[in-house]
Amino acid sequence: METNDLTIAQFQRHISEKYEKVDRQRGPAKTFLWFIEEVGELATALNGTDKANLEEEFADVVAWLCTLANITEVDLAAAIQKKYLGEKPPEGHK
Amino acid sequence: METNDLTIAQFQRHISEKYEKVDRQRGPAKTFLWFIEEVGELATALNGTDKANLEEEFADVVAWLCTLANITEVDLAAAIQKKYLGEKPPEGHK
Repeated sequence: METNDLTIAQFQRHISEKYEKVDRQRGPAKTFLWFIEEVGELATALNGTDKANLEEEFADVVAWLCTLANITEVDLAAAIQKKYLGEKPPEGHK
Repeated sequence: METNDLTIAQFQRHISEKYEKVDRQRGPAKTFLWFIEEVGELATALNGTDKANLEEEFADVVAWLCTLANITEVDLAAAIQKKYLGEKPPEGHK
């Protein structure tokens, strides 16, 4: 598959198939801790100059967000469509 | 477009076209503050019972992550492909 063809739904499903069983046993609260750890690593990478590491940390944050969505029964693509691609998207980021 | 067809690259580009000019002027550090505010709202939603709100907060976190990626020149789809869909993906979330 071409990189640009990767859909949000496909990646969320990929994370589900590969990791959800363990993720679900851990539960949302503990999984949120892991997510935040990755967010912290993203902050560190933003402060640094290692572009490859920055890219990796962005990927990790998306992956853990997919995990959180999987174990809380949220369809990320549908949620994004509704909030940002519907009739009344946010006028602007603050 | 069908919701399930929404690609990561398309959504990152959509956020760029709609918000990047202002986002870029704000810079990565201040943009990270807004991102974290949304992460906090996601935590609140995870503690609650309002599913529609939970979905909205997930969407906001993804959108602000796209903004951060846009202003730091990161291609999210490529980063995800490299880390999670390449030859040596992570064996498991911890």
